[in-house]
Amino acid sequence: MKLAAFSVGADHHIGVVQNEGEIISLSALSRSEFPPCIKTFIERSEERLLRAQHLIEQEENTHARFKLSDVKILAPIPSPEKIICVGLNYIDHCKETGMEPPASPVIFSKYANAITGHNEAVKIPVNSNEVDFEAELAVVIGKEAKCVTEEEAMDFVFGYTIMNDISARDQQFADGQWSRGKTADTFAPTGPFVVTQDEVGDPHNLNISLMLNGRIMQDSNTHNLIFTVPKIISYLSQSMTLKPGDLIATGTPPGVGMGRNPKLWLKKGDRMDITIEKIGTLTNYVID
Amino acid sequence: MKLAAFSVGADHHIGVVQNEGEIISLSALSRSEFPPCIKTFIERSEERLLRAQHLIEQEENTHARFKLSDVKILAPIPSPEKIICVGLNYIDHCKETGMEPPASPVIFSKYANAITGHNEAVKIPVNSNEVDFEAELAVVIGKEAKCVTEEEAMDFVFGYTIMNDISARDQQFADGQWSRGKTADTFAPTGPFVVTQDEVGDPHNLNISLMLNGRIMQDSNTHNLIFTVPKIISYLSQSMTLKPGDLIATGTPPGVGMGRNPKLWLKKGDRMDITIEKIGTLTNYVID
Repeated sequence: MKLAAFSVGADHHIGVVQNEGEIISLSALSRSEFPPCIKTFIERSEERLLRAQHLIEQEENTHARFKLSDVKILAPIPSPEKIICVGLNYIDHCKETGMEPPASPVIFSKYANAITGHNEAVKIPVNSNEVDFEAELAVVIGKEAKCVTEEEAMDFVFGYTIMNDISARDQQFADGQWSRGKTADTFAPTGPFVVTQDEVGDPHNLNISLMLNGRIMQDSNTHNLIFTVPKIISYLSQSMTLKPGDLIATGTPPGVGMGRNPKLWLKKGDRMDITIEKIGTLTNYVID
Repeated sequence: MKLAAFSVGADHHIGVVQNEGEIISLSALSRSEFPPCIKTFIERSEERLLRAQHLIEQEENTHARFKLSDVKILAPIPSPEKIICVGLNYIDHCKETGMEPPASPVIFSKYANAITGHNEAVKIPVNSNEVDFEAELAVVIGKEAKCVTEEEAMDFVFGYTIMNDISARDQQFADGQWSRGKTADTFAPTGPFVVTQDEVGDPHNLNISLMLNGRIMQDSNTHNLIFTVPKIISYLSQSMTLKPGDLIATGTPPGVGMGRNPKLWLKKGDRMDITIEKIGTLTNYVID
């Protein structure tokens, strides 16, 4: 199932993306069961997924059916408790940054202020001249996870989305700690959809690419991840309780702006399209 | 005004701490105006502070008056959007960690999973053997702040609380990035109170101390801060929108366990008491 949060005029919805560019609003079918919040859906996902499936099969209610091109897609989870990022998780990206592949996952953070959605602007902050893009597969946690093993970790995954891990490189490297340079407002575009685990299957065999102004900049496959999804979940859960709706960005493949010669920084008017197989395409525009 | 979140049996309240160990529940006086959430209070603080003052002056309603010793104090803000920490912000603490005083604030993050309250347990995680304490003054943001100057920064402060910036030193230094070692569950005890800015006055002239099992380990004054509260707020706000209820921990003075010879790590049964002048004493116990 491919879930989206969206709005039509002032009305907010969650819905299920269908073939041929349509979306069925679960909120329009039953707002009491499906308030317009994907995190709420995830918190009761076992019951909700079945009920959503049932409603959609019965669906003859045309007021609940929209063309995707007629709605505004919103960030699927605007207020996760945690946005956890894994750095240096593709071998070739380590090389282009001049850093050694890590022995264990490198963990850093964004806050929810950084979240923005599909087709929204990424704003270059006043204090950076070196803003870069990073295409990433993001895991959406489905259930509370604490001290889980790698073997059981996938039971705690709800699904996947895309994140563009926007990074102010000047701040990232001047500060040493990466937090500030990674969490400026709009530095975590996510979406457009959350696709459930059953529909994605193996998360370690997905083509992932980023186009900048129509030109391919990153082009890889998640089979190149150094630390796998269950490894990352188990590792994090030894320290912190993962919660429904938490996002874990799994790292970026090579091709980012800082790894190029000459280096290439985002500028006003740029368009970024990240495509991950089975998940979709996340598009954002740069403003200053 | 000294605000606290607390519970009496299953009932949750917010209230105002009075002299002589009493607290008046605003929620008991008017639950519709004062739901048991300090963040909600802060979001409408200009109106709420006046109304709270008025209710308390009129208060003859004994069912709203409790002895502090009869209530359970809760973490004042259990779900801030951001818990922003400033590292190495006291000169002498830089020396004991072997690090240079920074040219600009060192920023790192905790997530809300780390929050716990007064008299609650700090749990040593299964993956660390070097857990340390850090007494810190924490700023509570009152209004949205983006790109504010140092001169106007104090207008965006609601008040202050105490944070114990619990740190897994083995992880902090092995990882390079500090996120994981700083945000294990229970690694951000906060409270017991949020004291409004008008009652605290100058935040750069407060005695701050930490006792471990009754023995003074940290003993300093916030006049030793390298980067002041308005400097930190202005600096952060150039990147990210600060929101009502966000917590900014301003750094710790010398005396932490890792700076001692021999080094001293927290162990099951330890008691920590952090006292900051005009704010209160935050007590926590260590479990494993």
